[in-house]
Amino acid sequence: MARRTKIYEGKAKILYEGPEPGTMVQYFKDDATAFNAEKRDVIEGKGVLNNLLSEFFMTGLGQIGVPTHFLKRINMREQLIRAVEIIPLEVVVRNIAAGSMSKRLGIEEGTPLPRPIIEFYFKDDALGDPLVTEDQILAFNWASHQDLDDMVGLAVRVNDFMSGVMMAVGIKLVDFKIEIGRQFDGEMQRLIVADEISPDSCRLWDMKTGQKLDKDVFRRDLGSLTDAYSEVARRLGVMPKSPTPIVKPKLMN
Amino acid sequence: MARRTKIYEGKAKILYEGPEPGTMVQYFKDDATAFNAEKRDVIEGKGVLNNLLSEFFMTGLGQIGVPTHFLKRINMREQLIRAVEIIPLEVVVRNIAAGSMSKRLGIEEGTPLPRPIIEFYFKDDALGDPLVTEDQILAFNWASHQDLDDMVGLAVRVNDFMSGVMMAVGIKLVDFKIEIGRQFDGEMQRLIVADEISPDSCRLWDMKTGQKLDKDVFRRDLGSLTDAYSEVARRLGVMPKSPTPIVKPKLMN
Ligand SMILES: Nc1ncnc2c1ncn2[C@@H]1O[C@H](COP(=O)(O)OP(=O)(O)O)[C@@H](O)[C@H]1O
Ligand SMILES: Nc1ncnc2c1ncn2[C@@H]1O[C@H](COP(=O)(O)OP(=O)(O)O)[C@@H](O)[C@H]1O
Ligand SMILES: [Mg+2]
Ligand SMILES: [Mg+2]
Repeated sequence: MARRTKIYEGKAKILYEGPEPGTMVQYFKDDATAFNAEKRDVIEGKGVLNNLLSEFFMTGLGQIGVPTHFLKRINMREQLIRAVEIIPLEVVVRNIAAGSMSKRLGIEEGTPLPRPIIEFYFKDDALGDPLVTEDQILAFNWASHQDLDDMVGLAVRVNDFMSGVMMAVGIKLVDFKIEIGRQFDGEMQRLIVADEISPDSCRLWDMKTGQKLDKDVFRRDLGSLTDAYSEVARRLGVMPKSPTPIVKPKLMN
Repeated sequence: MARRTKIYEGKAKILYEGPEPGTMVQYFKDDATAFNAEKRDVIEGKGVLNNLLSEFFMTGLGQIGVPTHFLKRINMREQLIRAVEIIPLEVVVRNIAAGSMSKRLGIEEGTPLPRPIIEFYFKDDALGDPLVTEDQILAFNWASHQDLDDMVGLAVRVNDFMSGVMMAVGIKLVDFKIEIGRQFDGEMQRLIVADEISPDSCRLWDMKTGQKLDKDVFRRDLGSLTDAYSEVARRLGVMPKSPTPIVKPKLMN
């Protein structure tokens, strides 16, 4: 295969030029980072699991009519996606208080929220992705009023779908983050769900035991991240089978 | 005079029971605090200046039809106010980037904003008054949608008026904070401007020199706070004249 052109390498993924205009290849790395990349590690198998899980969620969203960037999975680490212009806002939907919301607003982790709360964070690692208000977003023209309406609409539908998916396999969807991009078609543009949906970008708690099945396992040193993500994949029936081992066999001597 | 009942002592003011139901006496202390009271000092004369300046601004607002809690000044330290139920949100209006906005969003201090930006902070010292979004405010029922509309309306009018006042005396109104309360009248309630409007709650920069004439002088150790506040009071013609000295004469021996 010819050497591909790398477009961008981020903390968890690499983007390559795609085979057709308007497409890209998204490669899922095993790198894990948290707290704005202050904590980092390589978790063998994470990239494979996130690639398969993001495919699973994005495909499902497509089926209910929520537009996403997902086109097709290429192999265990890569998927073909639509290239979009990412809106520089992380859209967070919360159903249960946890993480930064608990800390900032003094709400005990695990407290169900009166209704889902949608938050926007300005995607800027140097600033630590600060929470921003709609008034700030509009004033600085990071998104238009129409964009915000569309983003809230997408976020609510993703929350409905993902809540259903997780409920079906005994998992509470505590919160999640999505990124949204502009897809251009001549004069037209529409907003679609991009980036990834995976245990890296969700908080997922087992309904019975409360066990965390998401990146908090890494953030808070709660055990094996691959085990947690594998459990999610297993329950959803997307656990990769051999012969492609998730964890590369260790050399013995 | 009979001993009054103290209702609340805060960082900068004391509230006493008022002579009539629905009224309170607001006493302005000389205490200065910053950074969530981590930095504190006593600045002789500050209370007098803030009492007079808050009277001046609130009276002017009343004259243009913006309802406030101010009823009348009692003496150099005290004013009679309407008792309200304070909405637990600090309403900040910004015209120029400064302070926490500059730090959080990486905008150089002094950058004019594309338009005034209104922010809400949850008034809770223990949490450090975190920025909150309208969605959070509504979800947690800190204020209703109607309240938010009314608060934005009040904030915009206060900004217009205060910008005019300051422009007239060669001062840029960079930003300010107000608190808003519910005044009940039988079944009816209306929102009115409460607390104080003073150099403690505004950022004021001299138009020519850029000199700070507000609490940043204290926060950042830029010189005499009384001198800065006196300069604002002097320009507005509300500088108290003797025989009540702002600064109590020091005993010599
Ligand atoms: N469909 C897409 N088109 C263009 N860019 C995308 C798309 N999906 C995701 N991205 C961007 O690609 C990058 C994904 O790599 P990641 O490792 O998550 O990066 P980061 O460290 O910036 O979060 C992100 O910057 C994300 O915004
Ligand atoms: N008209 C009013 N009715 C009731 N409470 C008021 C009114 N105006 C201001 N307050 C409250 O009185 C207190 C003023 O004292 P201050 O020293 O500023 O307190 P804090 O340290 O809580 O900010 C504040 O808590 C403020 O919300
Ligand atoms: Mg990312
Ligand atoms: Mg106060």
